[in-house]
Amino acid sequence: MPSALDTFAALATDNAPGQEVRQGAGDMSRLMRGETMPGQLVDFSHGDVDAFTPTPGAVEAFSEAVEAGGRQAYTEYRGAADIRAALAEKLAAFTGAPVSPDAGTIVTPGTQGALFLALGALVAPGDKVAIVQPDYFANRKIVQFLRGQPVPVPMNYMGASEEAGIDLDRLREVFAAGARVFLFSNPNNPTGVVYSAREIRAIADLAVEFDVTVVADQLYSRLLYDGETYTHLRACGLPEERVVTIMGPSKTESLSGYRLGIAFGAPSVIDRMEKLQAIVSLRAAGYNQAVLRTWFSEPEGWMANRIRLHQAIRDDLLQLFRDGSLPTRTPKAGSYVFPTLPDLAVSLPDFVRLLRHQAHAIVTPGTEFGPHGHSIRLNFSQNHSSAIAATRRIVAMAHLYAK
Amino acid sequence: MPSALDTFAALATDNAPGQEVRQGAGDMSRLMRGETMPGQLVDFSHGDVDAFTPTPGAVEAFSEAVEAGGRQAYTEYRGAADIRAALAEKLAAFTGAPVSPDAGTIVTPGTQGALFLALGALVAPGDKVAIVQPDYFANRKIVQFLRGQPVPVPMNYMGASEEAGIDLDRLREVFAAGARVFLFSNPNNPTGVVYSAREIRAIADLAVEFDVTVVADQLYSRLLYDGETYTHLRACGLPEERVVTIMGPSKTESLSGYRLGIAFGAPSVIDRMEKLQAIVSLRAAGYNQAVLRTWFSEPEGWMANRIRLHQAIRDDLLQLFRDGSLPTRTPKAGSYVFPTLPDLAVSLPDFVRLLRHQAHAIVTPGTEFGPHGHSIRLNFSQNHSSAIAATRRIVAMAHLYAK
Repeated sequence: MPSALDTFAALATDNAPGQEVRQGAGDMSRLMRGETMPGQLVDFSHGDVDAFTPTPGAVEAFSEAVEAGGRQAYTEYRGAADIRAALAEKLAAFTGAPVSPDAGTIVTPGTQGALFLALGALVAPGDKVAIVQPDYFANRKIVQFLRGQPVPVPMNYMGASEEAGIDLDRLREVFAAGARVFLFSNPNNPTGVVYSAREIRAIADLAVEFDVTVVADQLYSRLLYDGETYTHLRACGLPEERVVTIMGPSKTESLSGYRLGIAFGAPSVIDRMEKLQAIVSLRAAGYNQAVLRTWFSEPEGWMANRIRLHQAIRDDLLQLFRDGSLPTRTPKAGSYVFPTLPDLAVSLPDFVRLLRHQAHAIVTPGTEFGPHGHSIRLNFSQNHSSAIAATRRIVAMAHLYAK
Repeated sequence: MPSALDTFAALATDNAPGQEVRQGAGDMSRLMRGETMPGQLVDFSHGDVDAFTPTPGAVEAFSEAVEAGGRQAYTEYRGAADIRAALAEKLAAFTGAPVSPDAGTIVTPGTQGALFLALGALVAPGDKVAIVQPDYFANRKIVQFLRGQPVPVPMNYMGASEEAGIDLDRLREVFAAGARVFLFSNPNNPTGVVYSAREIRAIADLAVEFDVTVVADQLYSRLLYDGETYTHLRACGLPEERVVTIMGPSKTESLSGYRLGIAFGAPSVIDRMEKLQAIVSLRAAGYNQAVLRTWFSEPEGWMANRIRLHQAIRDDLLQLFRDGSLPTRTPKAGSYVFPTLPDLAVSLPDFVRLLRHQAHAIVTPGTEFGPHGHSIRLNFSQNHSSAIAATRRIVAMAHLYAK
């Protein structure tokens, strides 16, 4: 059994999004080619909530909760019952399958909180957990902290197909080899691919065949681009206990500063998540929970406009990467893009540091998401013209440091 | 190795404070003696933030943070650097030993979050952890979730001495038997005792002798009653890496609805706590962190007045319990009181349910804190006259159901 110290070696956060401020610049003069590029710093490690501001009414909902006092400060660990009841209705309508307000919902501190609690509720030491590669970096780390065994399932996201490209034969093998938990993000983080209806149905069939519980992280599923379709796993006729779905208003709605997430589905899992929340953080901050009242209740046209603005940035960035010979999959939803770099004369960590100090662009290295040392992830929820300028610099840097 | 399901059986929250709303009333007519008592419901499971309202300026600090936008929404995982720097100064002054603002502080979602992260950073499966009995119920549960082994160290809080009554011989035995982590709350939750200078120095000496890391939960240490003295473990000359101190503005300052805690001390532990926070909840909600600016900066006289008001309630409740022959230790700090019940003709869980339904008083059973089936815990941070009325009912109920 690994000691506490061994476990933490696997949980390094130095390259995690938002932690760049803790890295030293080191001596880069030795590596640097050419001059520092002019331009304003763009932090692509997360969305810019000053460029895309929070949903209207959020701060008012918070202030009303403060006025309400103790009733809202101390909610059940799983969150205020009236807020969960309203959410259950909206989430059932959005996902196309019923949500039990009392037994099947829990409000968490961000979707990160929901992911940790869901895996904490499902994974014991030694348990195999199927994890897509590439996928959100914390998925693997949470399983490692719980001393489970992440078993990778590759996704061929640069294949010719319009599908996500998950290797369904491999998924079957991993389930057959004993994995009873499968965790995946849809749209995929970092690539922005959306799983096809065929892929989601295949996942549902395999989950039933092998008695697997699926944790579906659908954080970005509302930010779906024009003409794309999205299939909700939980609406594929699976037994209720087989799926936990995770969503939250932090990304598309720019409400990250409130740390709110929700998990819904399998009552027995939600029940264990609440027991775990009781010792991990007690509850999502009481007043903050009230901000969920604004979710799925945005003003007419607000979400459509937000999608349109993101799609325009996406299209411009894709054009720049492709014109610069950095092959890039088209994101169908969300605000991540995952361009492929040429072979570089420097290591990926050094290139990422050079991008920051020479080109004023903060990106997340592909190695955070799996064995993807030839890619970087950008969150393009940014000021449109700043994002274009910084992307031009990134493309120029890729050529400057190409082997 | 226990499965995920076995572990959760140990984490039952049905009797945890605030979860009473999820209990059914069941059929109590079979058990009930006498009539339902008139009176307004008092929820002693936690403080009443409507009776003792949050620190002035909290909501304004929050609103300013929302105005500040992205800078405050996405902080480092360990919390905004400027907020931690200001806190480090205040906490060094309060505890009497230096605090490193960068290496030695982390802001967490409540002190609950800090406790979980500290133990998560220190405890591997099979590790022995010394835990005081009685002490905060989550301490034992967190160790169990981490598959560590809680080893009890009794505290004779009803002894004749003015000291807390921790069994220091037993503590030495537990350290000698291999426990390398010791977790305790001071003031003790649920009894309100404060460890004497002699006891704290003995703990410090044992920690050095056996290379033990001590997690000191000092959540209530500011609410210290007239004439009492408090000894900060971290100011006893221990090496920096031996102590992590946990505090937060949730209780005394009634800021629970914001979910804020802080751990400070041992840099290597804080470092691992941050790595863990990255996968557990990312960070304390960004805007909420700004509320910490009001902490230790309350208006002149505000804290002294709050202490005076709590001391008056404490004294009245102690009088009522003692007049009613319910032996009770005098709390020296904090707002918990832990009276001893007579032998009852009903089980403690039934008595607690009867208190709620017949006497309109919600309390926490002593069994949450260790093998203390003869006690109940009350948080007396309540409206003064309501607390007195409800305490009279509790005393009457104890006599009504005495064997």
